[in-house]
Amino acid sequence: MTVAILGGGQLGRMLALAAHRLAIPCRALDPIADSCVRDVAPLVVGAYDDADALRELTRGATVATYEFENVPVRALEALASVRVPIAPPPRALQVAQDRLLEKRFFAEIGLDVPDYRSIDSAAELRAAASALGLPLILKARRLGYDGRGQRRIETAVDLDAACAALDRSPAPSIVERLISFDREVSVIGVRARDGQIVIYPPVWNTHDAGILIRSVTPAPSLARALIARADHLMRAALESLDYVGVLTLELFECAGRLLGNEMACRVHNSGHWTIDASSCSQFENHIRAILGLPLGAADVRHPAVMLNILGSAPDLVPLLAIPGAHVHLYGKSPAPRRKLGHVTICAPTPVEAEFAVARVQSLLAPIAPRP
Amino acid sequence: MTVAILGGGQLGRMLALAAHRLAIPCRALDPIADSCVRDVAPLVVGAYDDADALRELTRGATVATYEFENVPVRALEALASVRVPIAPPPRALQVAQDRLLEKRFFAEIGLDVPDYRSIDSAAELRAAASALGLPLILKARRLGYDGRGQRRIETAVDLDAACAALDRSPAPSIVERLISFDREVSVIGVRARDGQIVIYPPVWNTHDAGILIRSVTPAPSLARALIARADHLMRAALESLDYVGVLTLELFECAGRLLGNEMACRVHNSGHWTIDASSCSQFENHIRAILGLPLGAADVRHPAVMLNILGSAPDLVPLLAIPGAHVHLYGKSPAPRRKLGHVTICAPTPVEAEFAVARVQSLLAPIAPRP
Repeated sequence: MTVAILGGGQLGRMLALAAHRLAIPCRALDPIADSCVRDVAPLVVGAYDDADALRELTRGATVATYEFENVPVRALEALASVRVPIAPPPRALQVAQDRLLEKRFFAEIGLDVPDYRSIDSAAELRAAASALGLPLILKARRLGYDGRGQRRIETAVDLDAACAALDRSPAPSIVERLISFDREVSVIGVRARDGQIVIYPPVWNTHDAGILIRSVTPAPSLARALIARADHLMRAALESLDYVGVLTLELFECAGRLLGNEMACRVHNSGHWTIDASSCSQFENHIRAILGLPLGAADVRHPAVMLNILGSAPDLVPLLAIPGAHVHLYGKSPAPRRKLGHVTICAPTPVEAEFAVARVQSLLAPIAPRP
Repeated sequence: MTVAILGGGQLGRMLALAAHRLAIPCRALDPIADSCVRDVAPLVVGAYDDADALRELTRGATVATYEFENVPVRALEALASVRVPIAPPPRALQVAQDRLLEKRFFAEIGLDVPDYRSIDSAAELRAAASALGLPLILKARRLGYDGRGQRRIETAVDLDAACAALDRSPAPSIVERLISFDREVSVIGVRARDGQIVIYPPVWNTHDAGILIRSVTPAPSLARALIARADHLMRAALESLDYVGVLTLELFECAGRLLGNEMACRVHNSGHWTIDASSCSQFENHIRAILGLPLGAADVRHPAVMLNILGSAPDLVPLLAIPGAHVHLYGKSPAPRRKLGHVTICAPTPVEAEFAVARVQSLLAPIAPRP
């Protein structure tokens, strides 16, 4: 059994590390030669749609998977031509890659979303603004992540600027009502080849201008009805897509309801806590699922807080000395707002967790503002 | 920071995997080209005392360590010549490599051992047998592991055979009274460069003709006084050797006392449970210690039972389906009695653990008899 991974970032790295526990070899493909997967798995350097690179990646592979959402459709077509099974299914990726298809998919599974309009021109944007009112958020339909490709429209001046930008470089977009939500939660589910499903409890996520900085699990004081609702939605999404692997739903909690924000057809930053605080990590469960193996329990063995290490590496000495702090570094070079690692804090009581979290936070560099 | 590891077996593999979490690269040396560390770290293939291989191993290394006890002293001398710090200290290894020095060291730290005699000839063996009485166990002073190099002497016929064997191929040995002990326990401790010490709770070990098959942690119903005693002995051993890294003491519990059996200057099979059931695994703590980093907590987050996978790989499908079973495979080819992996079972209650352990055991092949 060998797993071919499109993408060589930290998610690929943690997938390969999980696979090593089961002596399952991985091979990864990334255009960047010093991708951080390189230390833990053979790396093929090449474009995602380079036929030779894909052949090399999938030589002897049992299955191909991907660790980022912007895999070009051409790469999937090329993969299909080398006859290696792909999981999660390409249809799921196509939905997740396009915010309009995603909203329609959410409607299909009964997940409400903030009011939105599909936009192809400045004129359509003005019309949508009239219909929906301000504030709005404009999002490119494709190729957005970590808050990129998004623009807030709060005033008439913002609207003019957004229209001018759309005139200059038109891009299929959606515009949605900027809702005031109570918090963001995510739910991560896994579906095996035989239909077995396990779902991790919902996590409370905090972002800084689109980039995840903290996940708390289980999401504190989340109403039981909403936990059941998240579970139901995840199950519906997995089954509707005949999904295999890890799927993430990002949701807004909003006045006692859950609204759909985004989905990600891959292991997710908000699930990193599972390495240290669940019986089976999202990474091992993804590997198990795509290889047709039974899934591990998606339980919470310890309440956990995950903090991302962004921009610059902290001093390891004081960080490792904090009881209950599980430190993970990815071997990436520092850059403003780049995800270099994460720390999962497990503590027996919320007060101890809070104390440890404050200590960890005091050692992390302030996050550089978004350029 | 790079860690050079002498030895490329499963212990080296798990050390490298622990180091990857912290983005610390390892490089390993082993005479065997398909050593199982190869999948997770660059492997230098060469003899342990090959100067070129050692230079390649330690190129740019911060520290050198070892993952098996029979590192030739010549290798350590060669390492000293390339001026890379070695941890644990070579003196500890010299003690652990020689059962006579080991017994004397145990006496130094106040740890009793079964009555024994140093033996260099058949005549000395006969004299020892007269003095100590039968049954006895004869052990080569050097190069024994997993029960190799040992011989039971229960009858006069056994004694004659052992004497004949010693006459044919004399080897410095010890002979000790074969005691009837209640059980074997081991204690694993870690000492950092600055003297910080953490000690995992004692584990109850079961062997099959010298090879570990099961570890239970914490050792059930171990008297508090003996836990404190094991802790005290470990602390004394670590400090007396000015030790840096993971040290293992194998002990006999015998009528309310602890007797010394062996020590191992390395991470140990009876500590594999720490990956899944402690805040910080023995592997990460060893890496932290030898690099001068602070140690992680050596707690028991979950009661755990570790079962070795010996001889042949089990069917993964039913094994992975057992709740609470954490499966680790090393990527080694099957061979009778060879350690191919292990399973750590964590369960909320002893009854649930017992149930899961029985299920796991039913999937593991029977252990081939010792040749």
